[in-house]
Amino acid sequence: MPGVPPQRFTYLGPEGTFAEQALLTLPAARNGVREPSATVPEALDAVRSGAVGAALVPLENSVEGAVGVTLDELAYGAPLLITRELLLQVRFGLFGRPGTKLESVRTVASHPHGLAQVRAWMRKHLPDAEQRSTSSTSDAAVAVARGDFDAAACAAVAGERQRLELLADDIGDSSTAVTRFVLVTRPGRPAERTGDDLTSLVAFIAHDRAGALLEVLTEFAVRGLNLTRIESRPTKERLGRYCFLLDCSGHIADDRVGEAVMGLRRICADVRFLGSYPAAEPSPPYTRRPGTSDADFADAAGWLRQIRDGATDRG
Amino acid sequence: MPGVPPQRFTYLGPEGTFAEQALLTLPAARNGVREPSATVPEALDAVRSGAVGAALVPLENSVEGAVGVTLDELAYGAPLLITRELLLQVRFGLFGRPGTKLESVRTVASHPHGLAQVRAWMRKHLPDAEQRSTSSTSDAAVAVARGDFDAAACAAVAGERQRLELLADDIGDSSTAVTRFVLVTRPGRPAERTGDDLTSLVAFIAHDRAGALLEVLTEFAVRGLNLTRIESRPTKERLGRYCFLLDCSGHIADDRVGEAVMGLRRICADVRFLGSYPAAEPSPPYTRRPGTSDADFADAAGWLRQIRDGATDRG
Amino acid sequence: MPGVPPQRFTYLGPEGTFAEQALLTLPAARNGVREPSATVPEALDAVRSGAVGAALVPLENSVEGAVGVTLDELAYGAPLLITRELLLQVRFGLFGRPGTKLESVRTVASHPHGLAQVRAWMRKHLPDAEQRSTSSTSDAAVAVARGDFDAAACAAVAGERQRLELLADDIGDSSTAVTRFVLVTRPGRPAERTGDDLTSLVAFIAHDRAGALLEVLTEFAVRGLNLTRIESRPTKERLGRYCFLLDCSGHIADDRVGEAVMGLRRICADVRFLGSYPAAEPSPPYTRRPGTSDADFADAAGWLRQIRDGATDRG
Amino acid sequence: MPGVPPQRFTYLGPEGTFAEQALLTLPAARNGVREPSATVPEALDAVRSGAVGAALVPLENSVEGAVGVTLDELAYGAPLLITRELLLQVRFGLFGRPGTKLESVRTVASHPHGLAQVRAWMRKHLPDAEQRSTSSTSDAAVAVARGDFDAAACAAVAGERQRLELLADDIGDSSTAVTRFVLVTRPGRPAERTGDDLTSLVAFIAHDRAGALLEVLTEFAVRGLNLTRIESRPTKERLGRYCFLLDCSGHIADDRVGEAVMGLRRICADVRFLGSYPAAEPSPPYTRRPGTSDADFADAAGWLRQIRDGATDRG
Repeated sequence: MPGVPPQRFTYLGPEGTFAEQALLTLPAARNGVREPSATVPEALDAVRSGAVGAALVPLENSVEGAVGVTLDELAYGAPLLITRELLLQVRFGLFGRPGTKLESVRTVASHPHGLAQVRAWMRKHLPDAEQRSTSSTSDAAVAVARGDFDAAACAAVAGERQRLELLADDIGDSSTAVTRFVLVTRPGRPAERTGDDLTSLVAFIAHDRAGALLEVLTEFAVRGLNLTRIESRPTKERLGRYCFLLDCSGHIADDRVGEAVMGLRRICADVRFLGSYPAAEPSPPYTRRPGTSDADFADAAGWLRQIRDGATDRG
Repeated sequence: MPGVPPQRFTYLGPEGTFAEQALLTLPAARNGVREPSATVPEALDAVRSGAVGAALVPLENSVEGAVGVTLDELAYGAPLLITRELLLQVRFGLFGRPGTKLESVRTVASHPHGLAQVRAWMRKHLPDAEQRSTSSTSDAAVAVARGDFDAAACAAVAGERQRLELLADDIGDSSTAVTRFVLVTRPGRPAERTGDDLTSLVAFIAHDRAGALLEVLTEFAVRGLNLTRIESRPTKERLGRYCFLLDCSGHIADDRVGEAVMGLRRICADVRFLGSYPAAEPSPPYTRRPGTSDADFADAAGWLRQIRDGATDRG
Repeated sequence: MPGVPPQRFTYLGPEGTFAEQALLTLPAARNGVREPSATVPEALDAVRSGAVGAALVPLENSVEGAVGVTLDELAYGAPLLITRELLLQVRFGLFGRPGTKLESVRTVASHPHGLAQVRAWMRKHLPDAEQRSTSSTSDAAVAVARGDFDAAACAAVAGERQRLELLADDIGDSSTAVTRFVLVTRPGRPAERTGDDLTSLVAFIAHDRAGALLEVLTEFAVRGLNLTRIESRPTKERLGRYCFLLDCSGHIADDRVGEAVMGLRRICADVRFLGSYPAAEPSPPYTRRPGTSDADFADAAGWLRQIRDGATDRG
Repeated sequence: MPGVPPQRFTYLGPEGTFAEQALLTLPAARNGVREPSATVPEALDAVRSGAVGAALVPLENSVEGAVGVTLDELAYGAPLLITRELLLQVRFGLFGRPGTKLESVRTVASHPHGLAQVRAWMRKHLPDAEQRSTSSTSDAAVAVARGDFDAAACAAVAGERQRLELLADDIGDSSTAVTRFVLVTRPGRPAERTGDDLTSLVAFIAHDRAGALLEVLTEFAVRGLNLTRIESRPTKERLGRYCFLLDCSGHIADDRVGEAVMGLRRICADVRFLGSYPAAEPSPPYTRRPGTSDADFADAAGWLRQIRDGATDRG
C-alpha cells in the first residue's frame, strides 16, 4: 500500500554487514523488525512470499554481495518493485578484543574483498600481519570475539555488536567507494514523484538486431533523459538475447519518462519496469538537452492540440 | 470549413500551363471558378485575402514556377494550410497552326525550361529549327497562334485552347519528371486522416547548434516516420538561422506524428505546421522500423498506464 | 589542369542576366571569352565536350534558372567538378529608355520571378502600371530598348548594355536573397584546400532502408562536419531510390571529410563527389562538436599507432 | 614478448576455485608454474611487478570474485593488457569424505554465492541440511576434509584435491551461467588478429556532457561494430566523471576498430585500451550493418584516393 511503510524487513546478512548498517539509516526499519537473509535470492523470496514487507539488497559496487545476483533476480525472477535507494559510504574499522594493542596484531580477518580494500593501510601499518579470509566482514568480527584471530576489518556495527574495541578507524583505501543498496517490495504503485527521481528498467534485446542498444539510448536522449547507469547482462539462453539494466533520471509519472519507456516497449523484445524512487543524492549537474524541461513538454502538447484542432498556427 | 470544398480557385498562370492542367484533375475545381495568377505570391495572397478559397502552386520539380518562391511563402508568409497534393506527369506536345507539317517547322518556342526538356527530341527530329524563349509554355502557344513562331512545346491544354494541331506527342525527355503541386487554403483543421497521408512542416534551426539537423531527423526516426522530402533553405537573416522543409509519412492525428512534431517544437527555434493530406500515390514500400505500428503505439500506451497505476508488470 | 584557369567560359544566358553579372566578378572570366548558353544543360554540355573550360550555373535560390535542372545534371549527367562558388546579391533596377520619367511608366516587363520580387515596390510606386512577362530579365531590357514596354526590372548589366537609364535602384523586396552560382569544369583534381572550404556530394539511397538519411547525416556528425545544405531529389526510376545533394564544411583532403565520405561510400547505394572549393563567405559560427579539430584528429591517429604497436598506454 | 607464452601464472585463489579450473584449460599454464593470489589486486600487482607473466582473473558473472574489483583495477590501476578470454561453464558438485551417504548429509558448506546457486537442488534433495558459509568454494572442500562439515558445493578440482568423493554432480541451477575470465599481462603488442576477436576499452566521460554515452555508442555503430558488453562504473571523484567498460567485436588492427577508437579518443575525456584477443566462442550471429565489411572498407579507401587525386568519378 503506497504511503504505508513496511514493518518487517530483511537484508543481505549476516548481522553486522554493511547492508544492515545501511538499513538502519531508515527510520521505519529502525522501528520495525529486521532479519538477515543468507543470500540475496532468499531475501527477495521473503518479499515475494509476503514473509517480510521489504528487503535491502546491494545493487552496485558491493563489498560483499555480488550485485550480479541481485540484477539477475530483478531481471528474471518474479517481479518486484524498487521503492528506495540508499548510498552507504563503506567505512572499514579495525576491531580487536578489548585491551588489544595495534602493534601486537598478528592476524587480520575479513571477507576477501574487505581485505583487498584495506590493503594499502595494512602494508603501511601492519606489514607483517597475516591475512585470513572469512565469508563476510561480520563473520570476521565473530571470529575475533571467539579468539580465532587478533583483529577484524569490518563495519562499526559488527565490531560493536561483538563488543570489540576500535583499534584504527577508516582504514579502507580512499577508493573505497559508495555502495548502493535498494529497498525492494512487491509490485505496486511506484513511490511518489519528488522532482529528483530515478527510474530503473530492464531492456531485453534480441541479438539479431545490430544497433539495438543505440536505438534504446536514443529513446532516452531525445527526451533529454540522462542515464546514470547502464550494465549489460548475458541471458540464460546464451545466444538468444541479452538485456540491459538501466537507471535514468526522472520518474515514470513524468511525460518525458513515459514517452521514453513507451518507446522502449515498442522496440525491445521486452521491458521490465523496476521502479521510480527518490534519488539518494542530488543529480549531478549535467547539461540538459535544450527543449526538454517540463515547461517545454507542456508547451509542445498545447501546441499540438491547437494544430490538430485547426487553430491558426502561431509559429 | 472542413469537408466543404472551395468554389473559387486560382493557380500559377497564365492559362494553359501545367498548373491549370493539374487543377483540372480535381472535380471541385472543374465545377468551380478558376482564375490564373501571374505569380505564386499573388496566388497565395488571393487565398489569404479570401478572394479565392484555394490556390494550386508548384512545390517540387516544376517546369515553370521556381518552387523556391512557394517554399519561402509557405515558410515565411502569413500562415496557410496544404490540404491536398497533386502529381502531374509533365507531357510536352509539339503544336502548330492547323496544316503545319512537322518537316517545315523552322522555329520552336517554349519556356527555357521547356526547351531544355525537349532538347533530345529536337536534336533528333528538328536539328535545324531555331529555339525561342517565351515567358511560359502557354505563352508559346499564344505566340504560335499569333503567327510569331511555327511551333510550341507546351501542355495539351495550351495547344487545344489556341486551336493548334498536335504535330508530335510526348516529346519530352524520358527524364521529364513528375511535378508536384499542392492545393493551399487558409489555416484550419487539417484534411481528414486516410491512413496513407503526408505531413509537411518547416523546422527553423538556430545556427549555433551543430548537429541540430541530426536531432531533428532523430525525432522522426525514433517514431518510425519516413521522410519523403527534405530541403534546407537559407533565411533572410543570413547568418541568423536556417530552416528545413520536411515531408514525412503519416498524419498529424497519428500518435507517432504527434509525438515527433512535439519533439520538434521542443528542440527547434520554431516549427510551422503546413498540413496533413492524403498521399497522391501509395507510399513507396520501405522497411518500417519494427515497433512503430499503430498497434505498437496503442500497446505501449496501455502498458504505461498499467505500470503507473501499479498493476503487476506483465513483462 | 589544376592551377591554370580556363580561358573560355559559358553561363546561363541570355546576355545581361544575373549569371553574367556573377561571372564578371571573376578576373579570369573578365579577361577570357564569355558566351551565353540558352539552358543549363547546354552550358554543361559545352564543358563536357571541351568547347569551353568552365560554366557558371545557378545552384541555389535562383531568380531565373530552375536550380532543379542544375542539380539533376550534376547528379545524373556525365560527371563534372565544382571548383568555385559565387554568391551574388540579386539587385533589381528599374530601367527605361533615356528621358523616361518614372511617373509616366505604364508597362513594366521582367521575368515572372523578377516581377514577383519587385511586387512590393511596384504596389507602392507604380500601382497602376501593367506587368508583362518576358522569358528572362535581360529580355525585358531588350524589349524596352525596342520600345515594346516602358520599363524593365532587371540587372544593371542588362540595362547598361541596352543603354537604358536607371529610373529607380534596388527595387527588389528586402527578401531578395543571395543567389548561389557554381563554376563547373571537367572532372579533375579538386581545388586547393584553403582551410575554409565546402564539399558537395550526391548520396544515392535505396528506398528500402528506413532511417538511411539518418545514417548518412550521422556519418557527418560523428566527424564534426556541419551540413550547410541538404536537398532531396526524386529520381527518374521513381520508386527505385532517391538521392540527396549535400554541402558540408571542409575539404576532401581533410581527414574528417575523407572519413565521412568513405562512410557514405560504404552505406549508400552510390555517392558522387561534386567538388571541394573555397567557401564564398566565412562559415557561419557554429558550435563545433568537441574533439573534432585537426589537432584532435592528428592526436588520435598518433595514439592509435602507439597502441597497435604495443607502446604503453599513456591513458 | 608477443608469441612467447608466459611461464609463471597466478590466479584468483585459493587453490581449487573455479579460476584455477579455468586456468588449467590453457596448455601453457598446465605446463607452467601456477600460484594462487588472495585477491584480484594482489594477482594483478604480481603481473605489474614482473613476479609472474600473467594472471587469470574473473571479469564477468563470477561466483566468487566481485568483478567490480577487476574492472576498477583495469580502469584505474597501472595499465595492463588482456591477451585472452576464457569462458568457464561453472559446474557445482557436492563432495563429501569417502563413504559419506547423500541422505546422511546434515551440513553443506560453500561460498554464499555458491549456496545461492545450488538452492533449488538443496530444497529438493537436502531440504533439512544446514547451510554454512565459507570464504570460497574451495575453502568449503578444505573444511569438509577437516571434518567441519558433511559436504561442500564446489568445483571438481577442489573436491579432487581434497580427496573427497562426488556425492552428486551438476547441482547448480540451470541458470548457473558461464563465468568469464581474462588472462592479463603487462602492456605490449596486442594478441594476433584471428578474424573473430574482441576489443576491450574503458571510456571516461565528463559528467557535464549529456548524451555523451550516445555519442560513444554512435562511434561504434557507424563502423558496424557490435558491442558485446557495456558496464558503467562510478568513479572515485564521484561527481567528476564516470566511465564505461566496453567490449566490441573486432581487433584493434582492423580499420573499423581503429576508426572507432580514434573517434572515442577524440570525444572522451580519456580512453584506455585494454586489449584485443580471440573471442572464446564464435560471435553470435547478428545482422551486421550493411556496408561495413572489410571489403567495403577497402573499396571506400581506394575510391577516396581516386577522388582526391582527381581521377574521374566512377559513380
